[in-house]
Amino acid sequence: MRREITGFSNPLVKRVRSLREKKHRKREGLFLAEGLRILTEAREEGVLPDMLFYAQEAPPHPLAAELIDTVDAAGGEVIVTSADILSKISGKDNPQAIVGVYPDRTTALTDLDRSAADIWIVAQSLRDPGNLGTILRTGDAVGAGGLILVDDCVDPFSVEAVRASMGALFTQKIVQCRWSDFLGWLRAGPGQLIGTSLKTDKDYQQPDYTSPAFLLVGNEAQGLPSDYEAQCDLLVKIPMLGKADSLNAAVATAVMAYEIRNQFRKTI
Amino acid sequence: MRREITGFSNPLVKRVRSLREKKHRKREGLFLAEGLRILTEAREEGVLPDMLFYAQEAPPHPLAAELIDTVDAAGGEVIVTSADILSKISGKDNPQAIVGVYPDRTTALTDLDRSAADIWIVAQSLRDPGNLGTILRTGDAVGAGGLILVDDCVDPFSVEAVRASMGALFTQKIVQCRWSDFLGWLRAGPGQLIGTSLKTDKDYQQPDYTSPAFLLVGNEAQGLPSDYEAQCDLLVKIPMLGKADSLNAAVATAVMAYEIRNQFRKTI
Repeated sequence: MRREITGFSNPLVKRVRSLREKKHRKREGLFLAEGLRILTEAREEGVLPDMLFYAQEAPPHPLAAELIDTVDAAGGEVIVTSADILSKISGKDNPQAIVGVYPDRTTALTDLDRSAADIWIVAQSLRDPGNLGTILRTGDAVGAGGLILVDDCVDPFSVEAVRASMGALFTQKIVQCRWSDFLGWLRAGPGQLIGTSLKTDKDYQQPDYTSPAFLLVGNEAQGLPSDYEAQCDLLVKIPMLGKADSLNAAVATAVMAYEIRNQFRKTI
Repeated sequence: MRREITGFSNPLVKRVRSLREKKHRKREGLFLAEGLRILTEAREEGVLPDMLFYAQEAPPHPLAAELIDTVDAAGGEVIVTSADILSKISGKDNPQAIVGVYPDRTTALTDLDRSAADIWIVAQSLRDPGNLGTILRTGDAVGAGGLILVDDCVDPFSVEAVRASMGALFTQKIVQCRWSDFLGWLRAGPGQLIGTSLKTDKDYQQPDYTSPAFLLVGNEAQGLPSDYEAQCDLLVKIPMLGKADSLNAAVATAVMAYEIRNQFRKTI
């Protein structure tokens, strides 16, 4: 169904705009994704938005026109609106010309098929949405199966995380669970739990990683709690040659994930 | 010299607050760094702020007290103020309890000693201050000598870049220059220029990197211009196994920089 919205006080505009806040995302089970690149990535994964907003000012890009037709044909709502209203929805002065509203993509831990990939990323109490999105993007690049968020992580469906993921939110499974639940699930099947730690001297290139590898990433400021480290099958350290004692969390995840991927590439 | 400032309209508060904007940083040759961790890192490098602001509400941390004494003894200005005024200066609701004002740390290309390190990072038209700071932090970790910013990069002395660098801004040399100047300087001495590109099939683990290695990173959205790629001694590709065609710029830099570092570690 296609319709036009021109009023700022339209209830749907208000409702969609409210999805920038976590409590509204949770209540509605919906989230926002912006921009043709991310929406096209979603579509290539077979994921269509429930609602699609686009600005009438610009003649739509051919990919946008295709997307609009596909959403319309699939029974989604297509809303033609103004750049100003998109700006209001996205909270940005220069909004993307197209915004989608998608149903929550969380997978239950019990529905996760660990054999679907040889690398999985597990993040604990991650706080920065940019880091979370960047880790999803890296996960996609290394062929990880998904991101398991344990404890109190930032919302993976926040606008910033979705943006930083560059569409990887739609290719990676996303699980949110407690540590104890994750550990119970992990130990019920095969899996090597690998943590990075400042408390070990084992270089990250030294061990042989085995599949499925679960790479555990700690909070940006605190790293992993000691009792979480104690549960790891392997603790390794990325060498730091400078004055700083840590890397950015998304960077450390990428360096580790590529080491694991490189080892697996060589043994195939 | 120590003094107290309690008024929001104090000219020094206004002046320091203005350093959040690039044009004022450029005019004054000064920039802001916030937080005890970053300021301590600077001090360990022998770099003291011209001015140091701290909030009187909190009893200062022992490291802060030491820093205050050191700045005072070195003839810097120490300003006791309120958390509200620090909040005004930093533009954050929960400001760091200590803020330093430092002189610009740019190094001229002609003053750069390439033999001081075996890895250098070169970024072209980098736009995101978080990426820039994260790249500095990674540079510190891999033992790089510094970051050479070519063309129109985001200001490395922006509050966001300084924050993301976690103090690496004080351990890494920072050069800002045009591409042609960089290339002229590079070719006047030893140096392998390494670019990442989607246009090559050469895996990034395939070549033997040689010292000094200059790792060239392109703009977040466009990557490197073709004519810049043509000037590289080596073009390599980080394997991408998923749907996305690129990594976050800071992540790609880290994956490359650690590969180079790992090769150099093994040949020593």
